Order: sequence, then C-alpha cells, then structure tokens
Amino acid sequence: MNSEKTIERLALIGVGLIGGSLVRSLKQAGVVKEVIGVARTRETLQKALNLGVIDRAEAEVEAAVDGADMVVVATPLQAMPPIMSRLDNCLGEHAVVTDVGSVKHYVVTTANLHLSRNFSRFVPGHPVAGRENAGVEASGPDLFRGRTVVLTPVEATDPAATETVATMWRNTGAAVRYLGAEAHDRILAATSHLPHIVAYALVDFLAQQPESDLLFELAAAGFYDFTRIASSDPVMWRDICLTNGDALCAVLEGYRANIDRLLDAVKSANGEALLTCFERSKLSRDTGLMNKTSAEQ
Amino acid sequence: MNSEKTIERLALIGVGLIGGSLVRSLKQAGVVKEVIGVARTRETLQKALNLGVIDRAEAEVEAAVDGADMVVVATPLQAMPPIMSRLDNCLGEHAVVTDVGSVKHYVVTTANLHLSRNFSRFVPGHPVAGRENAGVEASGPDLFRGRTVVLTPVEATDPAATETVATMWRNTGAAVRYLGAEAHDRILAATSHLPHIVAYALVDFLAQQPESDLLFELAAAGFYDFTRIASSDPVMWRDICLTNGDALCAVLEGYRANIDRLLDAVKSANGEALLTCFERSKLSRDTGLMNKTSAEQ
Repeated sequence: MNSEKTIERLALIGVGLIGGSLVRSLKQAGVVKEVIGVARTRETLQKALNLGVIDRAEAEVEAAVDGADMVVVATPLQAMPPIMSRLDNCLGEHAVVTDVGSVKHYVVTTANLHLSRNFSRFVPGHPVAGRENAGVEASGPDLFRGRTVVLTPVEATDPAATETVATMWRNTGAAVRYLGAEAHDRILAATSHLPHIVAYALVDFLAQQPESDLLFELAAAGFYDFTRIASSDPVMWRDICLTNGDALCAVLEGYRANIDRLLDAVKSANGEALLTCFERSKLSRDTGLMNKTSAEQ
Repeated sequence: MNSEKTIERLALIGVGLIGGSLVRSLKQAGVVKEVIGVARTRETLQKALNLGVIDRAEAEVEAAVDGADMVVVATPLQAMPPIMSRLDNCLGEHAVVTDVGSVKHYVVTTANLHLSRNFSRFVPGHPVAGRENAGVEASGPDLFRGRTVVLTPVEATDPAATETVATMWRNTGAAVRYLGAEAHDRILAATSHLPHIVAYALVDFLAQQPESDLLFELAAAGFYDFTRIASSDPVMWRDICLTNGDALCAVLEGYRANIDRLLDAVKSANGEALLTCFERSKLSRDTGLMNKTSAEQ
C-alpha cells in the first residue's frame, strides 16, 4: 500500500466548498497532477480557475472525465442521478469514482441504478466536515484535517477502488472509517441532520415573532454561535431531508418526545426532572468532547 | 453625570463567573476601591482572594455589606429570597443594590417582598453575557465588553440609583438598555432560555440512544459548537426554568409547533416547505448577525 499514491488526473464534478477543499488539500500534499472541473455555472468555473483550485474547466461531464483516473462527484444529492447516468457512458475502464454526499443509502441506490458495469469502482464516501459558508470561495486545504471520512462500500465494491479512495482522503489529513450505508444514515440523522433541523426550526420560530428585530438585537453572542448551522445551504439541506426522510423522522420524533418531557417539567415546576436532564446532558457532552479531543491529538 | 464615578466599597454576594467578571472589569477600569466577597464555600472565597478578584472575604452577608455603597447580588435565582431578607436589615441608608439574575419579574417580586424601605434603591439588572464554564476561575475583565446589560427599574426605583448602576455597567464596556421586567423575561425566554432547553433536549436525546458512544464520536466539530450551551450550569438553568415558567412554556409550545411542521414536511417529502423554512431562517440569522456586528463596532 503506497500511502502517497498520486492521482494523475482528477475530474471534479461540482466545484463547491467540499470538492474545492478536497482538491486544494491534495494539491498542497502534491498527490494530484491535474484537476479538471465541471460546474453548473461559468462563473463558478472561472472563480475556481482564478483561485487555482482547478487547472482546466469543462462545460460537459464527458470532456472532464476523459482520461481521468479519479472522478469525484461533489454536487447536491438530487443532482446526482443524471450525472451518474452520463458517467456510465464515458468512464475509463480503470477510473475510480467516489462522492461526498451526506446520505449514503440514497447515493448507493442511485449509483447502482445508473452505473451498471462501473458500479464496482464506485466507492460511496462522506467527509464529516463543513462550514456554514458555501461555494468554492469558502474552500480551503485544511477542512478535513483531523476530521473523519466515512466510506460505505458494498459487497460489489472492488476493494482496490476502496483503498484508492481511502488513501486519497488520508492524504487530506482525515481519518477513514468504514460503515454500512444504513448505519451511516442513522448515525448522521442523529448527529448532523437533526441538529440542523433543530437550529432551522429555532431561528425560524424567532423570525416569525412580532418583535423579531428586538429579539435578534438582544440575542447574546452565544445565540449566534448556537444557530451558526442555520446559515447552511438551504438546497443542500432540503436534499438531505428528502433523501434521508425515514431516519430523520425517527430521530425527530424521539427528540420531540424529549421536548414534550421538558415542557411538562417546566409546566409542573418539576425542578428535579429538569436538573436530572440538564446534568445528564452536560455530562454526556463534556465526556464526548473530551474523548474526541484526545482522539484527535 | 460622572461617567467614571468610583465605587468606594462593593459587596459582592455570590462570587462566580458573572460577579467575578464584573469586579475584575471595574478594578481594571480603576472605578472600584474595595471589593468584599461572600460565597457559599470557603474554597470559592479563597480562590477569589488568590486571583485578586476580591480584597476581603466575609462569611456573612451582614459583615460584607457593612459600609458598602454598592451591593451586587450575583447568586443563582433561588438563593435570592433569604439574601434579600438579610440585606434589608443591614443595608446602609445610601447603599445601592443590584442583581444579575436572568429572570427579572421573579427578582422584582422577591425584592419587593423582602427589601421594604430599601426597595427604592434596588435596581434589577441582567448582563446578557456568559460562557459555559462557571465559577470565579472562569471570570475575566472583558466578559461584558460590547455586550448589552438590561436594567428593569420599576416606578418605585430611585432614578439616581438606576443611574449609578448604569454607570457601573458602562464602565465594563457594556451598553445599557432599559426594558420592563415582563418584556425582558418574554424576550430572553425566546433568545436565551429556549435555545438552552433546545440544546439540552438534543444532547440528552443523543445520550439516551443505544449507540450513543458512536454518535458522540462521529459528531462533527459543528455539533460541539452547536451544543456548547448544553454544558452550562444545570442548577442555574433549573432556576431559570422554574422562575420564568410561563414565558418559557409559551415559546416552547411555539417552537414545538415549528418542529411539528418540519416533521410533516419531511414525512410528506414536501421539498418546497422545507426550502422555504431553511431560506427564511438563513436570511433572518444572517441579517440579525450583520446588524448586530455593525451595531457593536
């Protein structure tokens, strides 16, 4: 296993925060020779060229993929089906394909449906990292350092392709972890999708109040930290909700039951129930953070 | 109006994050000559002495208040009634009293009940600032710089006392704002108390899951930013819930209705409803933050 395996030509389909950060990181590590970008708009491609994120821009997937040994699909989830269809007709026979989508069952199903003979060289992936600013202009080479990238290969996936993608991610400074697609989606529903919904619901509730200007003015700095994730890309999050609906509904219902319990405790002035919940919550978070921080060092 | 009016002797009842930060800030500005501290434990008093936060420690409220021209009550809310009772018997006739409690209607009622002839020199106050680490060891002189302090004087409050307390807070770098106690409690229920409940409910939900260790391990860094406020002091937050129950229930019910609407949208795969909510939420937060940042500059 060569941990510094160089990619000769990487085709990046979708040039945004995640895709841009990936190729910046690989370029900085010197493990990619050439990056060809495809994006929805000319403007994005021009920005990516100006920033040196991509070396060449192409308008069509087919031209970008020609001669590529690595293809990374980094678009919103709902843009993937037509892209996969087109990829199936133009991929080189040794090209490895991966994606960065936040919902893996949907991506695996889509790839299985559209990639036919190339499906074995498709390695589903999800870097668990991000920031609220979207777009290639927000990308940077350090976004994945110390983060986890989850790969969810299936039985049909070629182990050599999986290893190639894992090596690529390790070269960004990320740790690679393997999970089944369903387990990934269930876990991310709880740790990422639910918190986003909770934050959107909170900010939206405040925005609907008659005195909302005063509310936002008097909110402490902590409020803006807390709601930072409610400034994430709305289209991306709509797609996540639509493609991971079952797992998200399950955690949303469980969370709502917790809100109901706390509401009952406030109504009945049950100080002991409130204190128990707050103490358990603080302990879990402090412990989780401590373990995480020591694991990342 | 002398904006640098010096406090001769400040009695600090409750030596924690907020009280400690207040006197550190006043000392740094050179606008307090002597600080006498009272706390529940000897250990806290010794720490505060070692850190130079207080100049003298007293075990009893009466001894601390003797000769003080300013008395700051900075304890959890439910500790206030017996303290107010004791203060009423030992306050000097020109001493100004204030507090830093997060729920003002409760504090005004408590003070009105216990302070009798001294009530006119009691100025209810709330610095809208904090951090998740509690205790005098987490205090610092810059906690209130650029923040808002809300004062909620009532009709019986002596305007000169209000001005003395406002000057003290301005000397910490804070802006002072006047509101009625009910308006304060309603607004803070939405912008501070509700977000804390939401965060506690979320972390507690994850902690109850069978695979919670894996959940906390795979949570992105954003999750820990998001849930930072769920590491706040449980006793303080229990007291806030118990003393601002009505306003908190009202916003919790409104928020829950928003969660229900989003749950319905996910269940029925209503992408447009989801997108509308996410876009409105992002716009409100981005606008609120922009206004806030420019106002603080």
